[in-house]
Amino acid sequence: MDFKDVLLKRRAVNFFDPKKPVPDKLIKEMIEMAAQAPSSFNLQPWSLIILKTPEEKMRLRKLAWNQPKVSEAPVVFICLADRTGWEKGHPLVEKNFREMVKAGAMKEEQHEWFLNACQGLYGARPEMEQAFACKNAGFFAMALMFAAKHLGVDTHPMDGFDHDAVRKEFQISENYWIPLLMAVGYFDGTKTLLPPKWRKTYDEIVLKSL
Amino acid sequence: MDFKDVLLKRRAVNFFDPKKPVPDKLIKEMIEMAAQAPSSFNLQPWSLIILKTPEEKMRLRKLAWNQPKVSEAPVVFICLADRTGWEKGHPLVEKNFREMVKAGAMKEEQHEWFLNACQGLYGARPEMEQAFACKNAGFFAMALMFAAKHLGVDTHPMDGFDHDAVRKEFQISENYWIPLLMAVGYFDGTKTLLPPKWRKTYDEIVLKSL
Repeated sequence: MDFKDVLLKRRAVNFFDPKKPVPDKLIKEMIEMAAQAPSSFNLQPWSLIILKTPEEKMRLRKLAWNQPKVSEAPVVFICLADRTGWEKGHPLVEKNFREMVKAGAMKEEQHEWFLNACQGLYGARPEMEQAFACKNAGFFAMALMFAAKHLGVDTHPMDGFDHDAVRKEFQISENYWIPLLMAVGYFDGTKTLLPPKWRKTYDEIVLKSL
Repeated sequence: MDFKDVLLKRRAVNFFDPKKPVPDKLIKEMIEMAAQAPSSFNLQPWSLIILKTPEEKMRLRKLAWNQPKVSEAPVVFICLADRTGWEKGHPLVEKNFREMVKAGAMKEEQHEWFLNACQGLYGARPEMEQAFACKNAGFFAMALMFAAKHLGVDTHPMDGFDHDAVRKEFQISENYWIPLLMAVGYFDGTKTLLPPKWRKTYDEIVLKSL
């Protein structure tokens, strides 16, 4: 699909057809597409927990303001942002460094420099860890919503949930923040969506041009 | 451009042609396209400072590890994430509520509920403010990189800068976090990019499927 169509046709869909499942093949494809998103030092600090059974979705729905879409959507993602995804010794950080060396993007002797740079940029203060994790997870989640739409699948990014209760219920470790849930499925064609919401203009977005 | 092409052809470009400017019309178009990104309660807590003159880009480059691309790219964005973009009385929060009412998405009597929900989800702890700001700015920045590529323009998201020094140098108020800088321009065709970097597989991204 043309990107402009993907951009304009993507809507946060409130009503999913509970009888129309999304094939696993498409779920995999959209995740693999979104994995192409860029990230800080290519660290890719994003993960997903996928819920498909009615029981698991109801467990989540109870902690998500009881929103019907959480159980009506055939698939729900708990999106995770790894706040430690820059630390020395983290398996993916070390894998990333090895892959960078293999690809010629870094040199073996830059290992210490690389870890120190990560520590300085992402680990110096808790707000930096949080920014690192959530910004990059934001890149991934945005790419995921576009990839879904490209494959004809609708999504709804959700903030209305009890963050700490979801962490506890699904035994999500403290290193992860949960920046959003995402309902995934097909729009229920018997319902009507409101027109697209207003957006900030260029002049509302650009504070200064120097 | 087909979304799959946008996705696969978007690269973090290290080398920009300093002699090839990006027309203002295209800058405006990519920003207006990216503005279609979704956000928490449609609050759109993202802003940009645009740098185009050599003097301004050099001011930034000095605080960004002296990376040549900061001054070689014809345009650089300082991307901003508003950590107070959910607060009662914030002009855009109040505008958003009025627009939601006008569009039938909320009712006038939900004003208090809306502000309380924002306070609970985004204002209860500093880490929530930071997550709110940076996740949504991540959505916007990802959409901006795709929109640029769709328009034939290259980008490079950058973390290598002194956050607090940039804030001070450009008089950016405390409510904003700077999740990234973004160089914008055209790839210098005399240079060669390394092949695309490795990405996590489906199995590395999905922690559990329930």
